[in-house]
Amino acid sequence: MANKVNLNADIGEGFGAYDIGNDAELMEVIRSASIACGFHAGDPLTMRRLVAHAARSGVSVGAHPGFNDLWGFGRRRITMPPEDLEYLIAYQIGALQAMARYEDLSVTHLKPHGALNNMAADDEKLALAIGRAIQATDAKIIYVALAGSAMHSAANALGLRLAREGFADRQYDDDGNLASRSIPGTVIKDPAVAREQAIRMVRDGEVVSRHGKVIPVEVETLCVHGDEATGVAVAREVRRGLEEAGIAVLPLPELID
Amino acid sequence: MANKVNLNADIGEGFGAYDIGNDAELMEVIRSASIACGFHAGDPLTMRRLVAHAARSGVSVGAHPGFNDLWGFGRRRITMPPEDLEYLIAYQIGALQAMARYEDLSVTHLKPHGALNNMAADDEKLALAIGRAIQATDAKIIYVALAGSAMHSAANALGLRLAREGFADRQYDDDGNLASRSIPGTVIKDPAVAREQAIRMVRDGEVVSRHGKVIPVEVETLCVHGDEATGVAVAREVRRGLEEAGIAVLPLPELID
Amino acid sequence: MANKVNLNADIGEGFGAYDIGNDAELMEVIRSASIACGFHAGDPLTMRRLVAHAARSGVSVGAHPGFNDLWGFGRRRITMPPEDLEYLIAYQIGALQAMARYEDLSVTHLKPHGALNNMAADDEKLALAIGRAIQATDAKIIYVALAGSAMHSAANALGLRLAREGFADRQYDDDGNLASRSIPGTVIKDPAVAREQAIRMVRDGEVVSRHGKVIPVEVETLCVHGDEATGVAVAREVRRGLEEAGIAVLPLPELID
Amino acid sequence: MANKVNLNADIGEGFGAYDIGNDAELMEVIRSASIACGFHAGDPLTMRRLVAHAARSGVSVGAHPGFNDLWGFGRRRITMPPEDLEYLIAYQIGALQAMARYEDLSVTHLKPHGALNNMAADDEKLALAIGRAIQATDAKIIYVALAGSAMHSAANALGLRLAREGFADRQYDDDGNLASRSIPGTVIKDPAVAREQAIRMVRDGEVVSRHGKVIPVEVETLCVHGDEATGVAVAREVRRGLEEAGIAVLPLPELID
Repeated sequence: MANKVNLNADIGEGFGAYDIGNDAELMEVIRSASIACGFHAGDPLTMRRLVAHAARSGVSVGAHPGFNDLWGFGRRRITMPPEDLEYLIAYQIGALQAMARYEDLSVTHLKPHGALNNMAADDEKLALAIGRAIQATDAKIIYVALAGSAMHSAANALGLRLAREGFADRQYDDDGNLASRSIPGTVIKDPAVAREQAIRMVRDGEVVSRHGKVIPVEVETLCVHGDEATGVAVAREVRRGLEEAGIAVLPLPELID
Repeated sequence: MANKVNLNADIGEGFGAYDIGNDAELMEVIRSASIACGFHAGDPLTMRRLVAHAARSGVSVGAHPGFNDLWGFGRRRITMPPEDLEYLIAYQIGALQAMARYEDLSVTHLKPHGALNNMAADDEKLALAIGRAIQATDAKIIYVALAGSAMHSAANALGLRLAREGFADRQYDDDGNLASRSIPGTVIKDPAVAREQAIRMVRDGEVVSRHGKVIPVEVETLCVHGDEATGVAVAREVRRGLEEAGIAVLPLPELID
Repeated sequence: MANKVNLNADIGEGFGAYDIGNDAELMEVIRSASIACGFHAGDPLTMRRLVAHAARSGVSVGAHPGFNDLWGFGRRRITMPPEDLEYLIAYQIGALQAMARYEDLSVTHLKPHGALNNMAADDEKLALAIGRAIQATDAKIIYVALAGSAMHSAANALGLRLAREGFADRQYDDDGNLASRSIPGTVIKDPAVAREQAIRMVRDGEVVSRHGKVIPVEVETLCVHGDEATGVAVAREVRRGLEEAGIAVLPLPELID
Repeated sequence: MANKVNLNADIGEGFGAYDIGNDAELMEVIRSASIACGFHAGDPLTMRRLVAHAARSGVSVGAHPGFNDLWGFGRRRITMPPEDLEYLIAYQIGALQAMARYEDLSVTHLKPHGALNNMAADDEKLALAIGRAIQATDAKIIYVALAGSAMHSAANALGLRLAREGFADRQYDDDGNLASRSIPGTVIKDPAVAREQAIRMVRDGEVVSRHGKVIPVEVETLCVHGDEATGVAVAREVRRGLEEAGIAVLPLPELID
């Protein structure tokens, strides 16, 4: 259906002595980076370095905020009132905006991390709180969300720009949700398979679930990962495949009205 | 010499369950608030609340960044390369800017906290690092610094706006430095004494040291404190005294070119 | 029914620049202190100081572990696998044991804090995880728990010593649970009322709910609080009342077999 | 001179999502592990896992405490009063003791990390503070220190057991100090060279500096590192070399009276 798409990854999730995720290589493949903001991972130095890399490579910069939980890597659910969450997010956006200003860049999208992403996908109050943080800090920021999630609705309710996200390197369940990483085989490690899935999602608006069911999908951005050994090779093949299929792979701000 | 001055205080140094410093009362007396940014104290919710209070009360908003050290309240010296420090400061400025945007306010000054303030007063590289963080995030931010300190020089070297700070409620040594808090009597608790010192500093450009020596001072801003039981009463009397002496007490952006 | 009981309070929930809860005064009233362990509140210096105070005052020392969440004061629910929780608790117990050793004291009880306490009261897996942390660090530690909670069952299942806890300064609902603090009047601020409730709980094994229903209760320890302005006065009157009623108020290790 | 020595490494310096240092392989080579205690690195789960590994592999367990500084990996100097430091160390020892108790192990040595190690090597007050933390938590704990450092003196002054440490995989300066890592070539990556240096240090009580000077050394323990790509191979060859030279490689408690 579409002849253009964005390619994004979570970036900057190491800090200090810790380096994970093959940031440097991924940054040459993706067009939009969701940069950790120092709460679940990342630190000011890492954020600054990756913003500079983004500027050099023509990658657009997004915030990847998470819970304040280094030990849990933002994967632990933490309950708090929506208002508290809103300011937690605004704080992280602002911190990244400061780093982006070093390169005359803006923070142009936001994608919640880990447990926060899972909770906000289901809970409208949390999804709206994140949306209000966007409105307050920069209303042009694109809200990256799973199609059909509470974040999708929240973006619409608040009149925010939205990019619906699909996954090039992960299998889907029949209901259109991502299959759990804990099920063997659900992380796609064969570059050719990921390439095919990515093209089909964008060009045909559908994905084949791990049980063989064809599911309609609408995506403006495809996520790839750097934390698997195979991740960068998969990401490269996804990008090459998309471009060879005549699909333009663009930074998010060039894609979303 | 001068017929106008600013009155500032460190604000928002509690968080969560912790409330210190009589923020609410002080905010009605001062004209500029140096708000803790979540590293040595403060949290997003507290920052947000105080920015709202500042907007209501016509108080200008400044960043009060510190080391990342809740247990030490930012009073422990932490050594790091100037570049690391620069981004640590930029991060905190950005976070507060996000909160300020909720009220259509800008962050208009910066005053380092505690051990960072002490280190940057003596160390030109750190003072310049803080200055570069200001330049990168908003070059109009006023650098609040002790006259004659390395921060004073750094502000000049970088062409930044500067506000030289004096203390209304603290005694001075003969060399023009603040006398240590650990010496009994150096924290001025008598409102009348603080009032007199404040007026003399602004009107006459001088302060009398705790040994009786008259020292020339140049100040654009006077600091008061809320953490002593007597602090708010002292601050109120300082403001009343200044105004009764015909000295306008203005927010920093109205005072500094 | 009983002629003896323990009186406990949460202690050491400030740290660094932050002082809350009237620790010094409460320590002269209670017989057992549940000391924060540096995760939701407290720090090594505060722990050390309160252990010394406990030694001087004949107060027994217990661990008051919480989630690793200073900003949320341990009041935010954080989900994690039971195994992770177990080691989080063992870590905190061990840290407090080190402090207790300075005074040749042992950590003799454990009471979870805030959201952790609420979660473990309902969730048997979490309650057992806490119990296993007790077993591993010192199997003689008394598990303080609401009667009938999952922690009560877990203590029994693991063969741990148990102290069932009631509240002298809080109203109960008809179902025997504590009434929410958010309902006006549920925090008992009148010393005489708290005194009467405490005596009746211990002597008669019953409490009158806020709607007037008489509920059977079994308690080995009564909790009082220092964070209300009235807290210390209430606690003092509770202790005086119990003793005047002929009820011995003992440290937990002298009370629980 | 000696026919026995210990081989130690810093272990458990990842946490959560972060894995560094090749812990699993190093644990099969060394005889004593200095385990990070959650302040500069590590977390309760990692500590627990490595204590279990130590028990399986006959490796003795030591504390590797550091400053409370995850972002700086404990490599930033933080100034605090000796008393504060003492309790910071005691806290970490206690936390690790709790984990060790799961395996019926004791914490049998202590080696400060990073900036703390550097500061305590020069500053007697800090070195004594660490020693007092050892005395309070378990006076049998062996203080691992550079020969001739303030920690060496502190251990003697307090009557603590001491293990003087040398480095198998690092070059020395002519004055007997370690050459800075920032100088190319000072990290020994050739297993044969490290092996030779290790044997000569133990057997002959001397090391050849990077400028060719023969320096007398006395060591009870040799440190190896896992953070270089070559680290494990170097460590393996050091151990093999020592044993082939007839030098017994023992856990610290079997070596130090």
